[in-house]
Amino acid sequence: MSSPKAVVLLSGGLDSCTVAACARREGFDIHALSFDYGQRHSIELESARRVARSLGASRHEIVTIDLRAFGGSALTDEIEVPQGDVPTSADEIPVTYVPARNTIFMSFALAWAEVLESQDIFIGVNAVDYSGYPDCRPEYIAAYQEMANFATKAATQDQRKLKIHTPLIDLSKAEIIRLGLELGVDYGLTSSCYAPCDDGAPCGRCDSCHIRMAGFSAVGAEDPLSYPEPQT
Amino acid sequence: MSSPKAVVLLSGGLDSCTVAACARREGFDIHALSFDYGQRHSIELESARRVARSLGASRHEIVTIDLRAFGGSALTDEIEVPQGDVPTSADEIPVTYVPARNTIFMSFALAWAEVLESQDIFIGVNAVDYSGYPDCRPEYIAAYQEMANFATKAATQDQRKLKIHTPLIDLSKAEIIRLGLELGVDYGLTSSCYAPCDDGAPCGRCDSCHIRMAGFSAVGAEDPLSYPEPQT
Repeated sequence: MSSPKAVVLLSGGLDSCTVAACARREGFDIHALSFDYGQRHSIELESARRVARSLGASRHEIVTIDLRAFGGSALTDEIEVPQGDVPTSADEIPVTYVPARNTIFMSFALAWAEVLESQDIFIGVNAVDYSGYPDCRPEYIAAYQEMANFATKAATQDQRKLKIHTPLIDLSKAEIIRLGLELGVDYGLTSSCYAPCDDGAPCGRCDSCHIRMAGFSAVGAEDPLSYPEPQT
Repeated sequence: MSSPKAVVLLSGGLDSCTVAACARREGFDIHALSFDYGQRHSIELESARRVARSLGASRHEIVTIDLRAFGGSALTDEIEVPQGDVPTSADEIPVTYVPARNTIFMSFALAWAEVLESQDIFIGVNAVDYSGYPDCRPEYIAAYQEMANFATKAATQDQRKLKIHTPLIDLSKAEIIRLGLELGVDYGLTSSCYAPCDDGAPCGRCDSCHIRMAGFSAVGAEDPLSYPEPQT
């Protein structure tokens, strides 16, 4: 009997790579899905390709969508990406928030899952380190799954209910890295930086780099990526 | 005080045009949203442009997305569009069903609504004539709205709750046409056909043409579109 198929949302970052490794451990046939959504840097799509290959994905689709038509985020607009000590808390949503991004991404995953006759979507949302994003919270994921099970022919006619897997949702960045290392993830293939250097190296200064570096430090492991020397 | 903004999903068909007229009647500032999703015919986007203009939309965005990467529907694939008497009932989903289409479309509407600080999305779903589509049912719309109110910064932080307006959901095609005529809709600007002729005229034979023609006939009004003479 062949393995059940899962659609895995793969950004090329540390979290989604770990999620893909979780899907593989559970025996799923990985169908990786990435988006070219007008990110200001395309290195993360290169990372997604490398990660998909390294984890033995059966297919990897990159869907182009244009969120820039609407504006509204530092990751797709001309707003400055914050660097250094930018406070983020559950009460304050970072300017890097992209409106409805996970809702859009999961909707494409849902379409593909239905065509594949898959009942499983994996997404690397995390409510701990990025608690400012509303669409990373467990209550959001639960509501999405509920909606999805009204949305499709598979769920309504064929009784193939969909499950959204969020294996990282309650983990700290250090716990995510520890899990990934146990699963044999090569984090040298991933990229996390919001504002990478021209040669693709991480800046070492943005929020995302800070969180990643602190995670590796807490685990006592070395990040295979090279960061620039801190400037004095 | 300026009018509140609404995002109106506009396909260029009879239903969405009527919905846009409802939004206008309620005093909303219309922000029309259409999709170029690999439809086999582009005439409906032309219709959407004409309708947006005729209803005085402040903006009309056409977002390109490619559902063909996933396959799975007669409207985007090479599957033959059924013509003639194809039975459709609540138990049987037509082959023209596009997986997760409304879920994807509303997700883009949600993103734009958040950027616009709008709390209102209008969509022309209808559970009567197209009861085979799971994502046209009231329970689906309710679940979507519930999910959307967990998804965004607007809803979670700013308490700007979103409402999805479905003014046509319980109407028959004849009732929709009667409503639109009362609101001054020019149905000559719309297109409904799944398989239009090369000159853009409706085929008069597909499901969608049949339903439209029967609707005008029931109202006792003349459809401003010209259909080919039935072949004997």
